[in-house]
Amino acid sequence: MATETPNELSLAESARLVAAGELSSTELVAACLDRIAAREEDVQAWASLDPEHAMAQARACDAARAGGPLHGVPVGIKDVLDTADLPTEMGSPIYKGNRTLSDSSAVAMLRAAGAVILGKTVTCEFAGVAPGPTRNPLDLARTPGGSSSGSGAAVADRMVPMALGTQTGGSVLRPASFCGVVGFKPTYNTINRAGLKFAAENLDTIGFIARSVEDVALSLRVLTQRADPPGSAGPARPRIGLCRTYLWEKAEPETRAALDHAAAAAAAAGAEIVEFELPASFAGLTEARETINNVERARSLAWEWANHRAAISVRMARSIELGQAISGETYHATLQFADTCRLALDGLMEGFDALIAPAVNGEAPVGLAYAGDPSFQGLWTLLHVPAITVPALRGSNGMPVGVQLVARRYADEALLRTAGWLVEVAGLDGRKAMADAASPGRVPA
Amino acid sequence: MATETPNELSLAESARLVAAGELSSTELVAACLDRIAAREEDVQAWASLDPEHAMAQARACDAARAGGPLHGVPVGIKDVLDTADLPTEMGSPIYKGNRTLSDSSAVAMLRAAGAVILGKTVTCEFAGVAPGPTRNPLDLARTPGGSSSGSGAAVADRMVPMALGTQTGGSVLRPASFCGVVGFKPTYNTINRAGLKFAAENLDTIGFIARSVEDVALSLRVLTQRADPPGSAGPARPRIGLCRTYLWEKAEPETRAALDHAAAAAAAAGAEIVEFELPASFAGLTEARETINNVERARSLAWEWANHRAAISVRMARSIELGQAISGETYHATLQFADTCRLALDGLMEGFDALIAPAVNGEAPVGLAYAGDPSFQGLWTLLHVPAITVPALRGSNGMPVGVQLVARRYADEALLRTAGWLVEVAGLDGRKAMADAASPGRVPA
Repeated sequence: MATETPNELSLAESARLVAAGELSSTELVAACLDRIAAREEDVQAWASLDPEHAMAQARACDAARAGGPLHGVPVGIKDVLDTADLPTEMGSPIYKGNRTLSDSSAVAMLRAAGAVILGKTVTCEFAGVAPGPTRNPLDLARTPGGSSSGSGAAVADRMVPMALGTQTGGSVLRPASFCGVVGFKPTYNTINRAGLKFAAENLDTIGFIARSVEDVALSLRVLTQRADPPGSAGPARPRIGLCRTYLWEKAEPETRAALDHAAAAAAAAGAEIVEFELPASFAGLTEARETINNVERARSLAWEWANHRAAISVRMARSIELGQAISGETYHATLQFADTCRLALDGLMEGFDALIAPAVNGEAPVGLAYAGDPSFQGLWTLLHVPAITVPALRGSNGMPVGVQLVARRYADEALLRTAGWLVEVAGLDGRKAMADAASPGRVPA
Repeated sequence: MATETPNELSLAESARLVAAGELSSTELVAACLDRIAAREEDVQAWASLDPEHAMAQARACDAARAGGPLHGVPVGIKDVLDTADLPTEMGSPIYKGNRTLSDSSAVAMLRAAGAVILGKTVTCEFAGVAPGPTRNPLDLARTPGGSSSGSGAAVADRMVPMALGTQTGGSVLRPASFCGVVGFKPTYNTINRAGLKFAAENLDTIGFIARSVEDVALSLRVLTQRADPPGSAGPARPRIGLCRTYLWEKAEPETRAALDHAAAAAAAAGAEIVEFELPASFAGLTEARETINNVERARSLAWEWANHRAAISVRMARSIELGQAISGETYHATLQFADTCRLALDGLMEGFDALIAPAVNGEAPVGLAYAGDPSFQGLWTLLHVPAITVPALRGSNGMPVGVQLVARRYADEALLRTAGWLVEVAGLDGRKAMADAASPGRVPA
């Protein structure tokens, strides 16, 4: 069965069809390239793309029948991960045309699994806050979120079924939520970061943007050598903590409605929903994440600062200067504070399959200069827990709003099973409109 | 005061003299280059060296009077850390002539502190176990240890006062002990690793090889933005745990004598010495470290494996194949086991200024093909604690044997103060011969 629009297929379905000989890699890659050709002028998701080289990879896959779990399937790579055959420019003029001898670990492992590296996706400058040209494919006047802007936009626009992102604050989950797709950040330090340009190494986590939980699970298995089956079954009656977090005042009505709708859907499908409050001390996590981020940016960009200061954005320069002014003592105390919170959370989450929490403040803001607030994602990034966003509903402007599920460190597969349950059993699919949500968002405190 | 042999000066003394205008950077760097010219044919510590470029850096320092804490002082860089002006070859033919656009974070921060980057020091292949050509300067028939072989040999041979190393198993402390100098590995993830080729990212730690504790403290302050004074004062009556570890059977008589001698010297100077036994479960740390090392090597070298397998050493290939065969489940369980041990150790070390433990099995072995056993260093590497080795005595072959001091995570400065106390107050200087040691090593169990 050849599908009419192979670029709309999921990663898992593409892999199944190619493996079965029902779809060729060349057809699939050509369909993605056609979609890009039709839409890239508007969306601007790609930092570098070499269609002929992508097609050559696809032909090689078709010529070699046996293959890995992603044989012949195209993927996108955020432009902070080294690729031997494409430039790695990191959204910075300093690295214009930069070539590396080797692939990053994640890229090499995707290739070893048979994937076609379709191209590099646009990143904010050094995976930070200064955006590239990418637009939200659902509304070109709005940001796609960042810093994995191109990965979010390309996957949402059916240009590629899955793209790698990285999250230091909220750079995987926020663009996924803003673009109406699925974004997943695994437990810290479980996907190898060799060949990643660090933003802040105590935070940076490689993750996936895709269009289904199943696709995220498949990607995770490839990059973590796990043998688990997709595990869409999930718990029969999950126990879920409803965690509004200490940032709840930032939640716009859309986010409040999304959380209520997701909790109501889960409860209706049999989940036990329990209010879950973070300890008061956790309110320091947002500032702690900023401290770590600023110190580590100052250090990881020390060469760029010394040699190319004029080519660094004003916002990044501000972060670097803040980081330079923070003492080693404060930095180390902050790292220890984060460790303490991680341990405490491990204990608090005992007995819960997941927490459900806001993913973003609300819908994607209008304008391209601001890629959105990382607060609701960043606190979980610092806690090193696995986190996923799935679309929950459409806000008052018709834009998607996701909810976030998190689990204990290393419980990545269990989290994906719970997320799969929420989508498949509880029916959360992001198509409901806000006005139609199960219950309205609460009034701000 | 111009010294006759500036290359023999410590890092701190060099920096003081240059800052005071009593020694020029060009005199200092020229003396180091002269020493290298005289000895390099025998020692082979350097992977790349550009004497004219080093002198140009020195002249620039002399021309610019004001400077950072390392103004005009030469340092060596292990050849797994990126340098914009010298190749980064990683001890592998795959990376012959490899150039990077930028400096690694540690190198850029050293430069920002005024240091002259003298050259790149020889590393075992990818900071692993396949040695380069470096010889032990104290006995050319013996290994200098590895994988920071060139850093250990160059510092011991007075070619440079300090060199960066990296430790994944025992790659900083072992060469330091084998070459009779000081080696320090800080708390994991406190020196920025941007621009380091990862061996195993959950273990890799950038450290220093120098000829005094003061020099290590100075280097640490530069790379961690700490403002502390050198802190040679140390505790008046330190409480030290004597930790033979579960590996004690591996300790040769020289190591037993070194530990006893150091403990006796500390006790004689007023320290409280308490036998300290690790919990039985910690005996799994050695295998756990190997599991993590193998899995992460397989991943970080995935590109090299796919594209240049024939250029990978047999020993590295074996590690990669072992790593590929380990499931993600086992890997994650191993990471969690290590986390558990770290937490337990934090509690057990409460009330101790440091533990004293074996640094190495014994003297540097004869021959260059085997860089020594990482077990005594590796267990502490996996525990992420700061660790330092200082020379304790001379073994039966006249070669140096160090002891190791470790402290709680983030207690790096306190550890250095205790180590300084052991050297300066307790008088441990490594000059005592084994036969003359305070008490003989115990008979193996």
